[in-house]
Amino acid sequence: MSTMTSEDAFLACIDRHFSNTHPHVLRGRGDDCCELSCPSRMTLSTDLFMQDAHFRLSYFSASDIGHKALAVNISDIAAAGATPLGFSLGLMIPDGTTGAQHFADSYWDDLFAGMAALADTFNVALTGGDLTRAGTFGLCVTVWGGPHYDAPFLRRSGCKAGDALFLVGQTEYAPAGLARTGLLELEARGASAADCYPEAVQAHLRPVPLVHAGQCLAAFQQQHSDARIALMDLSDGLARDLPRLLAAGKGTTGASLILPDAMLHPEVRRWATANGHNAAMHAFSGGEDYALLGSCAPEAVNGLTTALEKTGHRLTLLGTAHGDGGILLNGVPVTAKGFDHFSA
Amino acid sequence: MSTMTSEDAFLACIDRHFSNTHPHVLRGRGDDCCELSCPSRMTLSTDLFMQDAHFRLSYFSASDIGHKALAVNISDIAAAGATPLGFSLGLMIPDGTTGAQHFADSYWDDLFAGMAALADTFNVALTGGDLTRAGTFGLCVTVWGGPHYDAPFLRRSGCKAGDALFLVGQTEYAPAGLARTGLLELEARGASAADCYPEAVQAHLRPVPLVHAGQCLAAFQQQHSDARIALMDLSDGLARDLPRLLAAGKGTTGASLILPDAMLHPEVRRWATANGHNAAMHAFSGGEDYALLGSCAPEAVNGLTTALEKTGHRLTLLGTAHGDGGILLNGVPVTAKGFDHFSA
Repeated sequence: MSTMTSEDAFLACIDRHFSNTHPHVLRGRGDDCCELSCPSRMTLSTDLFMQDAHFRLSYFSASDIGHKALAVNISDIAAAGATPLGFSLGLMIPDGTTGAQHFADSYWDDLFAGMAALADTFNVALTGGDLTRAGTFGLCVTVWGGPHYDAPFLRRSGCKAGDALFLVGQTEYAPAGLARTGLLELEARGASAADCYPEAVQAHLRPVPLVHAGQCLAAFQQQHSDARIALMDLSDGLARDLPRLLAAGKGTTGASLILPDAMLHPEVRRWATANGHNAAMHAFSGGEDYALLGSCAPEAVNGLTTALEKTGHRLTLLGTAHGDGGILLNGVPVTAKGFDHFSA
Repeated sequence: MSTMTSEDAFLACIDRHFSNTHPHVLRGRGDDCCELSCPSRMTLSTDLFMQDAHFRLSYFSASDIGHKALAVNISDIAAAGATPLGFSLGLMIPDGTTGAQHFADSYWDDLFAGMAALADTFNVALTGGDLTRAGTFGLCVTVWGGPHYDAPFLRRSGCKAGDALFLVGQTEYAPAGLARTGLLELEARGASAADCYPEAVQAHLRPVPLVHAGQCLAAFQQQHSDARIALMDLSDGLARDLPRLLAAGKGTTGASLILPDAMLHPEVRRWATANGHNAAMHAFSGGEDYALLGSCAPEAVNGLTTALEKTGHRLTLLGTAHGDGGILLNGVPVTAKGFDHFSA
């Protein structure tokens, strides 16, 4: 049983983990509102992270939950090529009516420690929020950021027929399908899935938002106004997110993609083989990789690749956008299916 | 059964109710992030509004839920004396696992209509957010605002011993205890409570954030630097919120309050009589009035009263802050009790 029986006890725990000063924060936690010193343009995003919709208690540690709830939000700021500055947190604490959900104090300590470690990595301030007992365990994070120097914010829109489609990740492999592989194995085997699929499990539990990659792309766009970079984060999988990127473009209704097996992460390939799936289709359908998905003018690909390499990131060329409708994956038509919390 | 089985159907419903353009919004809903054109200072707040913690389906209409979820957030901006500009929404849609919680499409239409009407009143833009199925029905709103012209943001801090304590509301009565009266009657009798306690029920279901009153106080502070206005909104009741205001002050550890029955709303008095309670104590304990609670230099009271009257608001003088510890209400010591979601 938790001894955190008062709001004050939770707030004290939060204060132990999160600094209440930041160059961007004029007035931090402890008032009705925070006060922010703002650049003239800001970008802002809100994401929910709810038990059983987004995480399971059976294989997410408290630290994983704290990390990922913030990571998926910062990923949206990364997709804008912006610098994250601060966030607020709505924390729904299970009231015990829905099962064995009383947590020891150390649980909340671990959750806030996981969140604070990521916040420190990107120097984002927790400026406030709200706590309440609820029938569900969940977190609602709102994060905001400012321009990377004077670079423009990147958007999903701007793709034209003939533009190159790409993914940005941290390894030599296309960053698609790994987190989904981890999810499927975690659902099937619980935490022991990490024995066979360690990197896939890590990708699902602790995604790393690609802030510096997004900033690199924004800086490139600023220096090369004809680069025509459109960008979003890969949260629901290529099958769902690529059609969104195309729909936000100008007349881009389809794409031709080449995803050879050699470009896929070995654990993605191994999972597909073990489960009788086509590896490229598995990678195409997978969600929650929190890589960056974008398009650019074909002439910009080489320069972008070089610029990203300097920041330790890898651009994977996926193919080309076109105006003829339909997506071909390795020459085979694929339908736009993916993860929808509502129809799932 | 709802036919809103996809995220797209919800987003289309939201688009019918909320404009996606606003002078402050450079890029609205539909991308990973919104883009905001920002004043150099902003104030921001996040509040949860969850079924059974904050509202009951048995007596809140969908429109009431939409209204109040946004109203309680805008109230925090009002308490800063700021101008609300925009908000984001995390909407948790019940997945049917916790009871009879499938709503018809018209339910969501009504909820968004109630929220949009209040948003229009204060010209605040819905810039985005997140939707998910969850075990609980709830809303997490983050709202932000900018300065009222160049006025400073008001804070809780600043109260000194000898300063006047006041409430600001919309009627001749002290705005304390009415919403709690409504809550208690709604809990006891359901929606029919409105027959006997119409204004109390309305105060609980549809509080009106006092944006213009807050702005008036901020403008007064800007014009009278010695007014020493401290301000917060009355969300948890005087019993809990007054100690917070005092704790944020300089050496203010107590207060002497006078709340004659004649200052209380007739429904508050009637409820106290009918239930064998002291009316002033009932008003002191009541929460969720979303009035403004503040302090100022004694010399500023007359000027503030006059300024507020011009905006259609009423200042109720409560008493005086002091440094001697303890709160006296009509000469009787009272303890700081109030509503805590955790210990309740």
